[in-house]
Amino acid sequence: MRTLLVANRGEIAVRVIRAARDLGIRTVAVHSKADADALHTRLADVAVAIGPSPASKSYLVADAILGAAKETGADAVHPGYGFLSERASFAAAVADAGLTFVGPDAAVIERMGDKVAAREVARAAGVPTVPGTPGGVAGVDEALAAADEVGYPVMLKAVAGGGGRGIRVVQDADALRAAFGQASAEAEKAFGDGTMYLERFVTRARHVEVQVLGDGTAAEHLYERECSLQRRRQKLVEEAPAPTLAEDTRRGMTEAAVALCREVGYRSAGTVEFLVDDETGEFFFIEMNTRIQVEHPVTELITGVDLVAAQLRIAAGEPLSAVLPEVPAVRGHAVEFRVLAEDPARDFLPSPGNVGRVVLPAGPWVRCDTWLEPEAAVPPFYDSLVAKVVVWGADREEALRRSRRALAEFSVSGVPTTAGLFGELLDQDWFTAGRFHTGTLERWLAEREESA
Amino acid sequence: MRTLLVANRGEIAVRVIRAARDLGIRTVAVHSKADADALHTRLADVAVAIGPSPASKSYLVADAILGAAKETGADAVHPGYGFLSERASFAAAVADAGLTFVGPDAAVIERMGDKVAAREVARAAGVPTVPGTPGGVAGVDEALAAADEVGYPVMLKAVAGGGGRGIRVVQDADALRAAFGQASAEAEKAFGDGTMYLERFVTRARHVEVQVLGDGTAAEHLYERECSLQRRRQKLVEEAPAPTLAEDTRRGMTEAAVALCREVGYRSAGTVEFLVDDETGEFFFIEMNTRIQVEHPVTELITGVDLVAAQLRIAAGEPLSAVLPEVPAVRGHAVEFRVLAEDPARDFLPSPGNVGRVVLPAGPWVRCDTWLEPEAAVPPFYDSLVAKVVVWGADREEALRRSRRALAEFSVSGVPTTAGLFGELLDQDWFTAGRFHTGTLERWLAEREESA
Repeated sequence: MRTLLVANRGEIAVRVIRAARDLGIRTVAVHSKADADALHTRLADVAVAIGPSPASKSYLVADAILGAAKETGADAVHPGYGFLSERASFAAAVADAGLTFVGPDAAVIERMGDKVAAREVARAAGVPTVPGTPGGVAGVDEALAAADEVGYPVMLKAVAGGGGRGIRVVQDADALRAAFGQASAEAEKAFGDGTMYLERFVTRARHVEVQVLGDGTAAEHLYERECSLQRRRQKLVEEAPAPTLAEDTRRGMTEAAVALCREVGYRSAGTVEFLVDDETGEFFFIEMNTRIQVEHPVTELITGVDLVAAQLRIAAGEPLSAVLPEVPAVRGHAVEFRVLAEDPARDFLPSPGNVGRVVLPAGPWVRCDTWLEPEAAVPPFYDSLVAKVVVWGADREEALRRSRRALAEFSVSGVPTTAGLFGELLDQDWFTAGRFHTGTLERWLAEREESA
Repeated sequence: MRTLLVANRGEIAVRVIRAARDLGIRTVAVHSKADADALHTRLADVAVAIGPSPASKSYLVADAILGAAKETGADAVHPGYGFLSERASFAAAVADAGLTFVGPDAAVIERMGDKVAAREVARAAGVPTVPGTPGGVAGVDEALAAADEVGYPVMLKAVAGGGGRGIRVVQDADALRAAFGQASAEAEKAFGDGTMYLERFVTRARHVEVQVLGDGTAAEHLYERECSLQRRRQKLVEEAPAPTLAEDTRRGMTEAAVALCREVGYRSAGTVEFLVDDETGEFFFIEMNTRIQVEHPVTELITGVDLVAAQLRIAAGEPLSAVLPEVPAVRGHAVEFRVLAEDPARDFLPSPGNVGRVVLPAGPWVRCDTWLEPEAAVPPFYDSLVAKVVVWGADREEALRRSRRALAEFSVSGVPTTAGLFGELLDQDWFTAGRFHTGTLERWLAEREESA
C-alpha cells in the first residue's frame, strides 16, 4: 500500500490521514465544494474535488471517488465511517477497480448488514440474540403463545418496519391482547404489511460493544466500550472499559464477539454490538458494524493499539499475529465526549455556521480529534460532529476529573455546541457512579428541560 | 491543599495548573510584566503581577511570590523547574510562611544541591560515583599516582571551577605530566585557586536518569530516561525507556536511585542522574534534581502516572502507597522533542519575537505541552523553550514514525525554532538505531554545519 485515498471528511478523515502518514503511506483526500479548505483537504498529500456540497453529490458518489483514486494513482481506499463505509456495493466496486478496500470483503459487509443473516451468523457461532419469534406471527393467539416463551415485557414490532417505528412495549398478556390488533393495523397502513413479530423487551438495557480485529482467519477482541449514553439512538458519551459490568458478562461478551468474527472469517477492525440486561447480566447480540467506529479512541487509549493503523496493515496483507503480536492488558480508563454543533438549549438544533475563535483542550492524557480550526466553517450538509474530546485516566475517577478540566478548556465562538452540557453531566451522581442505561440520558435531558 | 500558587511561567506553569485543576485545587498564577497576557496567566483562577519582565525582578523574587500567596490565600506553592525550584532558602521561606512547599524539605534540597554532600549520600547508599580523587591533589606526582588508581583517560578539573570550565582530558601519564602545570596555572588565574582534582573520563558516556517518587519514608522509581542528546549540556531530545540499555544496568541504576532516596528520606518527585559507560555498562551517580524535570512527560506516557499530580498529593500529606498503589509496568516508548525559539541555522541564536500563526501537532498519542498561541509573544527574558512535542508508540519504532508526522504538522510563523531540525534528526541512522552518547548530537550538528 503506497497511496491511500480517504473517502470521507471531518475528524475521521484527519484521523485516517495521520495513521497513514505514521506508516509512511501517501494520502489522497477527496472533498466536496464546502470542504475545499477543510483540514482534511489541506492535510493530505493530494486533494481532489469530487462534487458539490451535498454528500449525495460528492462523498456518496462511488464513481467520483473511484475516478479520484485512478487520477491520483491510489492503490487503496479507506471509507471511514458513515457515507459509503458499509455499502457492500462500494467495497465490491473498489475491489473490481483493482484497489484495496480497507475493510472486510463485500460479501461479509452484505451478510452482517442484513439483520436476519447477521442473527443467523450469531446463532451459528453460539452467540445469544434477543429472545423473540424467528419471524412474523400469524395472529394474536400465536403472539400470546410466543410471548409466554419469550417472557414479558415484550416488544411488538412490524416485520416491515425499521428505525424504531411501529414498536409497542407490552407488560403482560392482557396488554398484548389489547395492543395487537391496533399495532398490526398501523403497520399495514405505514408499511403496507401488517405482519408483527415479538422480541423480549429489556427494561434496563445497556448498550455495550466489543472491538474486534481479524485478518480473515485469526480474530481477537480489544475489550468492550460502554455506549449507553444516547439521545435519539445517537451516542453522546462512550467509555472503556464499561463501568459496573460483571466480569463474567464481560468475558462472555468478548468471547462471543471473537466467535462471531471467526464464524464469518472477519477481516479488518469491526464492532460487535450487544444489549446487556442490567438486571440479569444477560447479553444479546444486536448487530455488527463492519467499519471503524466514531468511539474507537477510547479503546486505543486503554490498549495502546492504533486501530486505524491496524486496519491499514491488515488491508495491506499483514497477518493479525504481526499487527497484534499480543493482546495488551487494559490500562486505565478512557471517556469520549462528542462535541456536536447542536444547541442543547434548543432541543439539539443543528447549528452550522462560521466558527470564530477556537481553543481546543490540551495537556496530559487529553486527546482532541477534530477538524475545527479558527475561522473554520461548519457546513450544514453533514453530520454535526465537530470534535471528540477523549480523556484517559489511571482509573475512571481520574478520567472523569480530568474530563471536567479538559471540557472547561474547550471553547468555540460562533456556533453553539454540546461541550457545555458535558460539564453538567459530570455533576450527575448517576453518571459518576456509572449507574445508567440507554434511557437515562434522555430522561435527564427531559428533566433538565423542565426545570430550566 | 485548596489553593496552589504556581511560582513559574511557560509550559510548566500551564502543566502544573492543569494537574491542580484535575485535583480540584484552585490555582494562582504569578506573572512578570512580559507575561501579563500569557497562557498560564489566563488559565489560572487568579493571577498576580509580581514585577518587571526580567526574572531577577519577578520570578526570582521570593518575597514577591510569598506576598502574592498571602494576598490570594494560597496554602501551597509549586516551584516548577528552574527559577527558585532548587533554592533551599526559598523552600524554607515558604515553610516559614506556614505554606506547603511542593517539593522536598529545604534541608534535602540543600544537601542534594551540594555536589560533595550529594556524593557522600550516594556513597552511604552504596551508589557508585565517578571514580576520582576525593578532593584536590597536592601536585603532579600525587596526580600521577591517583590517575593510576582511577584509570586513564582521566579528567583534570579545577576544584574551584564549574560549568565545565578548566577541564582537561588526558589519555596517559605523559599527557598528564605535560598538562598538569598549565591547567593548574590557568585555574589559579581563572578562579584564584590552582588546586586540581581527577576524575575518570568516560569516552562514550550516556546520560541516563531515573525518575523517583518518595513520601519521606517510602520511595519507588518509575524507570529511566535517556537524555544523552544534548547541545552545550542542554538536553534537546529525551526518551523513555532508554534504548539499548542492558537489563542489569537498568536494574542496578533504578535500585541505586531508590536506595539514594531512602538514604535521604526523599519526599516528592525527583530525578537521579547517572553517567553510563556505554562500553562497560558501568553507571555512576552524577547528581540529583530535587524538582520536576522538563522531560517528565516521557515517563508519564510509558507509566500512566501523573507526576505533577503525584507531587501535589504527596505535598498534601498522602502516603506513597496511596499515590502509587503499584508501580505500573512500562508500556511502549515515548520521545520528547524540545522546540526552542532558537535558530539552528545561526548557531542556535535565541529568536524572541512575535509569533503569527501556530499549528500544534495533534492526533493520537501526540502530546504538545506548550504556552504557544497564535499572536503570542516570545519574550527575550526567559529560557527559549516554547513547546515540548511528546510522542508515544507501542514500541520505539512506532514512536519515531509518529514523531516524524507530528513534527511535520508543527508550524509557527514569526520566530525560527528547532522543530525542523528534528525531522532531519529522524533521518539519522545513529538516532533511529539508538546508537549515540553525550557527544553525538554536537558532532552531528558540527558536521551538518560544515556540509551546509
